[in-house]
Amino acid sequence: MERGTPGASRPAEPGPCLSNLRGAEPAASASRLSADRAQPGNPTIAVAAVLPAGGCGERMGVPTPKQFCPILERPLISYTLQALERVYWIKDIVVAVTRENMGTMRNVIQKYQHKRISLVEAGETRHRSIFNGLKALAKDQPDSQLSKPEVVIIHDAVRPFVEEDVLLKVVIAAKEHGAAGAIRPLVSTVISASADGCLEHSLERARHRASEMPQAFLFDVIYEAYRQCSDYDLEFGTECLHLALKYSHMKAKLVEGSPDLWKVTYKRDLYAAESIIKERISHEICVLMNPKDDIEPIDHLLKALKNELNDVKIESGALSQVGRDIQQSKLEKCYNFVCMNVHFFDFELVPLSQKMESLVWVRDTAKEMKKRNILLHGLIIEYSQGEKFQESLRQGAIIIAALIKERSSGLVGQLLVA
Amino acid sequence: MERGTPGASRPAEPGPCLSNLRGAEPAASASRLSADRAQPGNPTIAVAAVLPAGGCGERMGVPTPKQFCPILERPLISYTLQALERVYWIKDIVVAVTRENMGTMRNVIQKYQHKRISLVEAGETRHRSIFNGLKALAKDQPDSQLSKPEVVIIHDAVRPFVEEDVLLKVVIAAKEHGAAGAIRPLVSTVISASADGCLEHSLERARHRASEMPQAFLFDVIYEAYRQCSDYDLEFGTECLHLALKYSHMKAKLVEGSPDLWKVTYKRDLYAAESIIKERISHEICVLMNPKDDIEPIDHLLKALKNELNDVKIESGALSQVGRDIQQSKLEKCYNFVCMNVHFFDFELVPLSQKMESLVWVRDTAKEMKKRNILLHGLIIEYSQGEKFQESLRQGAIIIAALIKERSSGLVGQLLVA
Repeated sequence: MERGTPGASRPAEPGPCLSNLRGAEPAASASRLSADRAQPGNPTIAVAAVLPAGGCGERMGVPTPKQFCPILERPLISYTLQALERVYWIKDIVVAVTRENMGTMRNVIQKYQHKRISLVEAGETRHRSIFNGLKALAKDQPDSQLSKPEVVIIHDAVRPFVEEDVLLKVVIAAKEHGAAGAIRPLVSTVISASADGCLEHSLERARHRASEMPQAFLFDVIYEAYRQCSDYDLEFGTECLHLALKYSHMKAKLVEGSPDLWKVTYKRDLYAAESIIKERISHEICVLMNPKDDIEPIDHLLKALKNELNDVKIESGALSQVGRDIQQSKLEKCYNFVCMNVHFFDFELVPLSQKMESLVWVRDTAKEMKKRNILLHGLIIEYSQGEKFQESLRQGAIIIAALIKERSSGLVGQLLVA
Repeated sequence: MERGTPGASRPAEPGPCLSNLRGAEPAASASRLSADRAQPGNPTIAVAAVLPAGGCGERMGVPTPKQFCPILERPLISYTLQALERVYWIKDIVVAVTRENMGTMRNVIQKYQHKRISLVEAGETRHRSIFNGLKALAKDQPDSQLSKPEVVIIHDAVRPFVEEDVLLKVVIAAKEHGAAGAIRPLVSTVISASADGCLEHSLERARHRASEMPQAFLFDVIYEAYRQCSDYDLEFGTECLHLALKYSHMKAKLVEGSPDLWKVTYKRDLYAAESIIKERISHEICVLMNPKDDIEPIDHLLKALKNELNDVKIESGALSQVGRDIQQSKLEKCYNFVCMNVHFFDFELVPLSQKMESLVWVRDTAKEMKKRNILLHGLIIEYSQGEKFQESLRQGAIIIAALIKERSSGLVGQLLVA
């Protein structure tokens, strides 16, 4: 077992920050755990998480294990770790990876500056990987640097959109019932088949549920269950709630989860995950002006943009052409947006061709900024009077919306004309 | 019940053609049905399909019923109809839609020129809608213009990626066993809950399957089952295979389906469907040159493009600047590609600014072509010697690949520089 090194330097490619997931304002219910903490005498629940990530992703039809499949050039598991580590009351996150992926995993932790992560070696099966993760947290391991939690969350590396709210619900339910797990309604009817491949029995859909992740357990309950369970369970079982019932006699509390909990299983799920991430990161955009340009039309553009994009967070800033760079402070504050370098001018007074000099600057700067995962595009808007200006603004907003929505790095550095 | 009018005129917006789904070369197994047809004395299976499309899509979280949700501006159900109607041996397709969506559905049929479609009114529940569809196909309906099939396929309007292969398999199995349905392995463990919301029982995942669509039945078997079944079944049941078992004592044959059969249920499924459709339509592209330009560099570009895009069908053509339009014949042959108007020239001999005249032409033409669902972009490639030219070609190919992949109409008419 090894402890991930918390990188001190800013990563070269920090990847998109999921503004929705950041939890700048914690959910109302989350205050229950923090209140516990604040009041002395009221016991805090010590919580850790175990993530089995040893799967080979055979159902995906791609050679890379699905937890390492890139989404917008960043591995899927990194989004899941980000979702867990933004929950401050999860003290340790133990990830079980195969020996051959240990190096890849270390690189992910380093590059995206993940915190509170410990790595253990995955077992041959999912249950064996979870068991290895639990062993790392158990007190009776002499080499462990981790402390035994009261409640342990078990989650999948391939469910990146888990929210703090459901994590809290399963933890509180586990504290009360010993075991708890998220469930979802069934999408398809479930049937059993006879040996000759014919329908034997069809389950009533309303009386059954799909068991999803996260699940949570009193640590002793699930650890004892794993210590007692058979090799057959470890080889062929899939359900932790079942082990808690069978070996620790704990009837798990079932918690309704949101549709977000789905597991990335097939290639189409990667597509869906990419679209969801794009939708979330599309909410940060910075419109940059040249300092010598008139400041007034930018307000019109921001207004037009708000018509095209809902809930978008728009910043405008001045671009220092002298240093040929954008202020470092701005980049560090929000490095995951699309940047637009906008020029307003009247085509009748200044021929478009004269503005082609801008192209060279935008291209060179974009190349540099792309290395820091910032997409920069140039945009020229015709700044005339009346109707024509309005139309150009509208076109400009459509172009910016398209660039943000797709976040396609193939088009950085282009000078677009609205 | 009404018969859809087969539109005679070419639709204004024919929408993307799914080249992968077209079945230009029928699957090997498909010849079994056509061989039956060719040999007199060997009975042909008369096949029809029923599509319940009366759902309101409450799980999607959007006001539009999910079967009418647009994907690349075309309603989801239109892709499903296209997938069914390209299978020539399905003689009739009966779609059950609610009264309020009847007009919408008629417009879809007209606009995308769907053939062999009949509309019936949907019932209150899925089973009632299917029953209405079957009634339209039954012989004992005096006003029916359809003939009773031997085998009827039941499919969902929201499973657009169904392949001929699995349709054929369920039809042949239904002919033999009376009933047949596609199944898939379970993704999550299925559990049953006690009244107090705790885990009661966890099903062994390996022994159960998800029942998916398509399903097929001997017409008389399923029609009789519907005629005999209870109001409770019609109100609360979900599984047609179950009705065939319960009322017609037919043990359905279960057929392994591909992952493509999944049902568009949640918003993330719309994202996934859009990505899959984009991937499929991205395979047609036309690179247009000006006739006076040198023809040689285009070959280099086509080569570079093949490095960026797998299996892409690339055409190159001359662009008649005199008529300021692309030949109509070319448009009719393949209207669903991205069009690139490419200019090669040496930036040292001809300053970039002089080429800005092209911008106006590309913008005006793109605006016209967009009405016919063709996306036109301009591209300038630096045509010099050696290394620089290679780099520019590579950049050009990356830009074209990005435009094709995203198929974003917000960027049409832009002049991009490689």
